[in-house]
Amino acid sequence: MNTQKVPHVVIVGAGFGGLEAAQKLAKAPVRITLIDRQNYHLFQPLLYQVAIAGLVPSQIAYPVRTIFRHQKNLTFQMGEVTAVDLDAHFIKINGSVIAYDYLILAVGGQTNFFNMKSVEQNGFQLKDIQSAVATRNHLFGMFEKASREADAAQRRALLTFVIVGGGPTGVETAGALAELIRHVLTKDYPHMDLHDVRVMLLEAADHLMGSYPNELRKATFDLLSRKNVEIMLNAKLTDYNGTRITLGDGRQIETQTLLWTAGVRAADLASRLGVKQAASGQVLTEETLQLPGHAEVFVIGDAAKPIQRDNQPLPMLATVAQQQAKAAAGNLQKMLKGGKPQAFHYKDPGLLATIGRNAAVARIGGLSFSGFVAWVIWVVLHIYRIIGFRNRLVVLINWAWDYVFYDSQVRLITGE
Amino acid sequence: MNTQKVPHVVIVGAGFGGLEAAQKLAKAPVRITLIDRQNYHLFQPLLYQVAIAGLVPSQIAYPVRTIFRHQKNLTFQMGEVTAVDLDAHFIKINGSVIAYDYLILAVGGQTNFFNMKSVEQNGFQLKDIQSAVATRNHLFGMFEKASREADAAQRRALLTFVIVGGGPTGVETAGALAELIRHVLTKDYPHMDLHDVRVMLLEAADHLMGSYPNELRKATFDLLSRKNVEIMLNAKLTDYNGTRITLGDGRQIETQTLLWTAGVRAADLASRLGVKQAASGQVLTEETLQLPGHAEVFVIGDAAKPIQRDNQPLPMLATVAQQQAKAAAGNLQKMLKGGKPQAFHYKDPGLLATIGRNAAVARIGGLSFSGFVAWVIWVVLHIYRIIGFRNRLVVLINWAWDYVFYDSQVRLITGE
Repeated sequence: MNTQKVPHVVIVGAGFGGLEAAQKLAKAPVRITLIDRQNYHLFQPLLYQVAIAGLVPSQIAYPVRTIFRHQKNLTFQMGEVTAVDLDAHFIKINGSVIAYDYLILAVGGQTNFFNMKSVEQNGFQLKDIQSAVATRNHLFGMFEKASREADAAQRRALLTFVIVGGGPTGVETAGALAELIRHVLTKDYPHMDLHDVRVMLLEAADHLMGSYPNELRKATFDLLSRKNVEIMLNAKLTDYNGTRITLGDGRQIETQTLLWTAGVRAADLASRLGVKQAASGQVLTEETLQLPGHAEVFVIGDAAKPIQRDNQPLPMLATVAQQQAKAAAGNLQKMLKGGKPQAFHYKDPGLLATIGRNAAVARIGGLSFSGFVAWVIWVVLHIYRIIGFRNRLVVLINWAWDYVFYDSQVRLITGE
Repeated sequence: MNTQKVPHVVIVGAGFGGLEAAQKLAKAPVRITLIDRQNYHLFQPLLYQVAIAGLVPSQIAYPVRTIFRHQKNLTFQMGEVTAVDLDAHFIKINGSVIAYDYLILAVGGQTNFFNMKSVEQNGFQLKDIQSAVATRNHLFGMFEKASREADAAQRRALLTFVIVGGGPTGVETAGALAELIRHVLTKDYPHMDLHDVRVMLLEAADHLMGSYPNELRKATFDLLSRKNVEIMLNAKLTDYNGTRITLGDGRQIETQTLLWTAGVRAADLASRLGVKQAASGQVLTEETLQLPGHAEVFVIGDAAKPIQRDNQPLPMLATVAQQQAKAAAGNLQKMLKGGKPQAFHYKDPGLLATIGRNAAVARIGGLSFSGFVAWVIWVVLHIYRIIGFRNRLVVLINWAWDYVFYDSQVRLITGE
């Protein structure tokens, strides 16, 4: 049959990279199998909003099958890839084997706890819908517990919320949580003493937002401080037993809430390939994004570390994954025609992070913005990037509502 | 202090009954403590919509604290009441004791499996947000599994969905599930053979909708059949091992999905009171809704069975709980003024159930409707009854969207 001759492209991961690669190959003369552990694509940059009850999961998750309803050359399979045989050209999934002619690994990242087992066990993280909902349930559970706690010291510990990591995720979460408490929860808990509530942001370096220019690091610090976030710089965490954080200099913080946003490393599958990896588990690739010695395998996104002439490591961002996906799909199509794959070059579109109501920091076209203008850019861009017109509409209504009424949508404690 | 003299009313349960009672006592000279295991009020009649991916939990759940932000005489406490001491007038919750002058028990119902352990263990139910989300995850998981199942018999079993119970919940779920599959899932699974998919509704009696008049039972049967729901009457379930249903007459159905909607009994707390209970665990009360021998305790809603002159048992419906709440709150206020509590009489506002797109059955003012008119009444009434203007707006947009585009919102498989 003819389908036997059509090259089979297997794409692992339906994150930003995998999705983009699959879409770019829509008209290519290939059969595509797209694989993901979940049946949905997750808009990861807004996951922290699920944790602070600003959005519900379905607003930032979209079924993969629906996205590809009209792409005839693609089949989706939900499942976990348990092994890749790079020499025999097949992967294992759901107990069966899928052979490939080309493989695009876009397996993404996971939280990097840097081997701190106590933090991994007792802390919270934002890696997927489950962990974000668990964080939300925990946050509101703390307020319920505090509302019936007579002991002042104990109540203060219940109402101390510590976020670790001064990068965009930590900063956005800290700002949003501080506002949720100030504008919404104070109305739900009229008897609660606001002085008991602390939102703390811990960062090991001597500045926030390491990847941003100096003036925006400073702006971030000021904007967060104004929202009553207590920022601790040079704070290196050494242990967390579930009720007490211990820092490197011996200082301690009593808290039942530690949200860890201080590191990302490549997904586990990267370690099972048996190939060279960088420090954070990223797979080293050629400039062309191909795996050395395996020209038919591309690795893109958070799990990849391509050789770059300028030796500058790329940030783990959606824009990087999407640009690499485009490059890998382009190289694959060149190879199909007998051509030669080309080196990938990242075009930096800028940096953007929100710090709550009316406040954000941005770096676009070499210019730094902060405050209201940056925030408007952030809102417009994020609504535009969410998949599905209905999701855009509903998120827009939600945010407008919250903005006008100082409200917040999903303050539910679901599950145990 | 003066607060010592103000009578303390404890209301257990923030369902329809508890909520209504608390609101009716807003201006009464009492202190109220409202208690619930969850931090939200759940709009139970639409819970099945969460299971079939039509709505997200936050659209039918509303934080109790937000509902009562402006009611100064009320405090909310989240927790499980573990004991009630009717003689000493206190309850136990979260390891501490709360004394009451008046107690309103509105603890609601739970699924009645009639001691069929195999069904309870292997079947699904719609009792709360968790069980509804678990049902949703399972339903969509079955489609994913079926999409990669080569064996035809096995695939057919994966795609056989059995709902047990021909009452309103079973009928509404079966109708909505059949439509979801026909209008939405067929588009997401273009390679799936529709003939493999079966939605079955099992009912032990020889008719559906036992509480409805004959012409509406018939209309329900016809409307559901037209939506390709296979209705089996006189079908008594005896066992379900997770893959196979066995009926009383020996017939068997291969399925991995059994949703049990065939019974409700009073919540467990009713059994821990040490008082007389009816067959389904309901607490027997006076005509005034007071507990015999305990004039200061009212029992209302699904957990109550008041003595009625006509001896007609009341349905387990929100409208009954709300009317009883009003009556109990009224009687309590009469007692505060030294008056005599009065007998409760249920005013039947009618019956209403939807059977999917454009189809519903209704009994209002002695008249029976079915089809499109009944469906419009259902939509308007349910949107009106949802708490929170934002929720109303968002549900309205959702339903309108689904209606126009034959779409459905939350086809996500979250959690394991």
